[in-house]
Amino acid sequence: MLIKGARQLIGPFSWPPGSRPFPARPFMRLPLPSLPIPARPSQFCRQLASVGALPQLTKDRYPQVKRGSFSKLEQTHLQFFRDLLGSNRVITDEDECQSFNIDWIKNVRGFSQCILKPKSTEEVSKILAFCNNNRIAVCPQGGNTGLVGGSVPVFDEVVLWTGQMNKIINLDETSGVLVCQAGCILENLETFVGDSGLMIPLDLGAKGSCHIGGNVSTNAGGLRLVRYGNLHGSILGIEAVKADGEIIDCLSTLKKDNTGYHLKHLFIGSEGTLGIVTKVAIHCPSKPNAINVAFLGLKSFDDVLKTMKQAKQQLGEILSSCELIDEASLGLATGHLQLKCPLGVYPFYMLIETHGSNNEHDEEKMNTFLESIMADGLVEDGTTTNEVSKMNNIWALRERITEGSTHEGYIFKYDISLPTENFYSLVPIMKERMGESAKVVCGYGHIGDGNIHLQVIVNEFTQDALNKIEPFIYEYTSKLKGSVSAEHGVGFRKPKYIHYSKSPEAIALMKELKTMMDPNGILNPYKVLPS
Amino acid sequence: MLIKGARQLIGPFSWPPGSRPFPARPFMRLPLPSLPIPARPSQFCRQLASVGALPQLTKDRYPQVKRGSFSKLEQTHLQFFRDLLGSNRVITDEDECQSFNIDWIKNVRGFSQCILKPKSTEEVSKILAFCNNNRIAVCPQGGNTGLVGGSVPVFDEVVLWTGQMNKIINLDETSGVLVCQAGCILENLETFVGDSGLMIPLDLGAKGSCHIGGNVSTNAGGLRLVRYGNLHGSILGIEAVKADGEIIDCLSTLKKDNTGYHLKHLFIGSEGTLGIVTKVAIHCPSKPNAINVAFLGLKSFDDVLKTMKQAKQQLGEILSSCELIDEASLGLATGHLQLKCPLGVYPFYMLIETHGSNNEHDEEKMNTFLESIMADGLVEDGTTTNEVSKMNNIWALRERITEGSTHEGYIFKYDISLPTENFYSLVPIMKERMGESAKVVCGYGHIGDGNIHLQVIVNEFTQDALNKIEPFIYEYTSKLKGSVSAEHGVGFRKPKYIHYSKSPEAIALMKELKTMMDPNGILNPYKVLPS
Repeated sequence: MLIKGARQLIGPFSWPPGSRPFPARPFMRLPLPSLPIPARPSQFCRQLASVGALPQLTKDRYPQVKRGSFSKLEQTHLQFFRDLLGSNRVITDEDECQSFNIDWIKNVRGFSQCILKPKSTEEVSKILAFCNNNRIAVCPQGGNTGLVGGSVPVFDEVVLWTGQMNKIINLDETSGVLVCQAGCILENLETFVGDSGLMIPLDLGAKGSCHIGGNVSTNAGGLRLVRYGNLHGSILGIEAVKADGEIIDCLSTLKKDNTGYHLKHLFIGSEGTLGIVTKVAIHCPSKPNAINVAFLGLKSFDDVLKTMKQAKQQLGEILSSCELIDEASLGLATGHLQLKCPLGVYPFYMLIETHGSNNEHDEEKMNTFLESIMADGLVEDGTTTNEVSKMNNIWALRERITEGSTHEGYIFKYDISLPTENFYSLVPIMKERMGESAKVVCGYGHIGDGNIHLQVIVNEFTQDALNKIEPFIYEYTSKLKGSVSAEHGVGFRKPKYIHYSKSPEAIALMKELKTMMDPNGILNPYKVLPS
Repeated sequence: MLIKGARQLIGPFSWPPGSRPFPARPFMRLPLPSLPIPARPSQFCRQLASVGALPQLTKDRYPQVKRGSFSKLEQTHLQFFRDLLGSNRVITDEDECQSFNIDWIKNVRGFSQCILKPKSTEEVSKILAFCNNNRIAVCPQGGNTGLVGGSVPVFDEVVLWTGQMNKIINLDETSGVLVCQAGCILENLETFVGDSGLMIPLDLGAKGSCHIGGNVSTNAGGLRLVRYGNLHGSILGIEAVKADGEIIDCLSTLKKDNTGYHLKHLFIGSEGTLGIVTKVAIHCPSKPNAINVAFLGLKSFDDVLKTMKQAKQQLGEILSSCELIDEASLGLATGHLQLKCPLGVYPFYMLIETHGSNNEHDEEKMNTFLESIMADGLVEDGTTTNEVSKMNNIWALRERITEGSTHEGYIFKYDISLPTENFYSLVPIMKERMGESAKVVCGYGHIGDGNIHLQVIVNEFTQDALNKIEPFIYEYTSKLKGSVSAEHGVGFRKPKYIHYSKSPEAIALMKELKTMMDPNGILNPYKVLPS
């Protein structure tokens, strides 16, 4: 196991400056390492995807999936794209295409021979109108940080990459509304609105690479949904291009607008299969004056649940994150990425964060909460801090688990919503089920929202391993009325499993919508909809 | 004017017990009346609609709207309904039908001769399948508290009333998720979840009558959107019945569920034209431990804007309402409904409310905020309280304006979103435009969300008065990129104006959706979609 090695890096006790000790009870505390703020995992995404052993071609690994009756790319098609975009925004070099063909966790690989890099809505509109008329399949791609193979081609689809649509259009500081193109990188937007005292109501590990258009198209959830809600609530407006090239302008910047059907929601979470999002308007709340983080070690899942309940009650309106990390998940981050953990070894860790407007009030609420969980004997050890670099170090332990996992082997990754009391139940069941065939079985995620990320890591992909996991994991989730895709979406890997979470009538309605919006099926084929 | 008469009711200065004086500066303060908690306006809705002078039949007032080619109701149809529901849930008595035919602000009147009262989703399904097969038009109706004529028939549509679908199905106290039928009255739900320390994240003046299904179908906004967000964010699941009777079960109770298209949003805000909502799952946040209300008198709109900005900054995460009432609007509540105002006469009033988990912290934040706006000379007078009966009395001044207005004459009522700096600009413009022809021109509403309710009240409806207001008011709103319906929806009265806020392509997509979901157009015809 990795964990032991990682633990040896941790030195003896001393209080890191800026950290506040837990009141009232002595803890065994370990120093926070003074590392530079770690690079976000997502900054590695494209590199990771293109280096090392190539994953098997998707068409070979999943031979049951058949190429649709789309046109093969011809020189006349390429000429149209070059006339429209110029040669340097039409990529056909095989090596250059490679990183757009592979997802960053190396689960799937397509073989597109053409990457298009439009800069404007009008260019997207002309590309789609042409592709629709010529029956050319299109795979929209943003930061390519998805985890279900939704953003890479399955066969030879043309990739429409949004990275050059990266302009900020307007920020209204009074109302807190940001309008920008779909290809803006989430972290860049965060920095931009931060200068005006605002924040983006979405944060996730991949923020250094992911595009806001991709976030919206996949209804990304992330680390602070417990406080700032989901994108259906905070996206005020969307401009999108339909498969036939028609531009749908619903780019309202108003908090309230009940003039007819709420069309923007067709594009939130439909993973580019109903249209390509080109611009978004986002409501940005005020940046908190005070941020506090507590990192806790706990001995049982029952204690985790009780601690969460107290966090919700006592931290109330300032609770901005409530995350769980199990021992094995932490080991993947500490073992492979030289990250240090400030606590000893425990079966469970919780990361609890507050965002508030008054640091004195927030610290008091946090201290009261910590005192109360200590008095109840719910935590074994913990540290709390409001120093930026230390908070980043703690957050890295949570955010870089996926990155650490890629060094361990082939990842079977599941993103599941379960009723709170059953949140962790799948992990021990899967551990037993996999036995020696898995290197690691671990679980972590957004317990505050009932969303666990379960990973089964093996040396390399085998059908046997897959058969041990699926469909069992989905059947289990379905029985508990959970969701087989909480926040990662359906993409390529899950269409055949959505019936575990959606009724036949709902799936039929999805298909009717798809037929209405994209009658030729050119937009992101083989994704989302079951065949 | 009413205002003078109302003011005479106010007695000399004394501090009401439980109110906290503004710190640091003496104010001229007036006592809060010790009235019982006033009845909600909505409790009067159905009575108001059915008593007094009847409004003109819609078909006569708007002769340009032609009856669709739907079947006329026949005895065989009635027999089917009676066989399905029993005689006592099929209303055909003319007097009994009356209140279902008139909206409560007496703007529109249909002449339905049949009211159906299903109790279950299955009954709704059978009714719609039958109506679809027999081309019978259906008008869904909940609490009938809408303000745009969306919930009453235009001609002889069968009314499907949800009032007997009023069962609570489940409340999960740990996750805070309530599942209930569509006909539950909002206030009843509030009381029910309140017993478990939770609250419904929606509150509006009509809560004593409105049904949650109607709230969802109209994407109701209400008084606390600034804090708890909109229904697209807080509705977790929906069960709805399509025009052909098919039941779409998207009744997820999970906070995160990205398994395919987010179909529930088709039904949120489409005003019963795409399907009839039969069940909802709502995320209920914790009930606040502390509620504080401040009621302020201000001399200019510029001061209102500055006060709002400071409220957002200083009250941050606990700000739960930020409402504006102008002098004339307040006069309608105090003059007609024996409500008393604790402050003197000012051009503007603001109601600012906080919801928080720690009263000491919240009071400190509120006091700091009040001190700061006083030091800046932004408010002329004010009172603050956390006593329930006094908070209710203050809230009644805001919530009962519409009810008071019905006593004044015929109301032309507009519900508009405008950029904050232009929020109030329409009121003086309309006042000048109407001149002597209007009894009252006033504005009030949710300034925290940029949503104003503008009223022009005349002795009785005249086409001349209407022509003075429309389309001018919509053209003005459109020029400022506002919304011609912020929260009330489109209903019967606004379809021809939605092009002021929606592009032709978006309207075309709405029509495609309608054709797909309801090819015979039986669901709430003449509403929402422009002809």
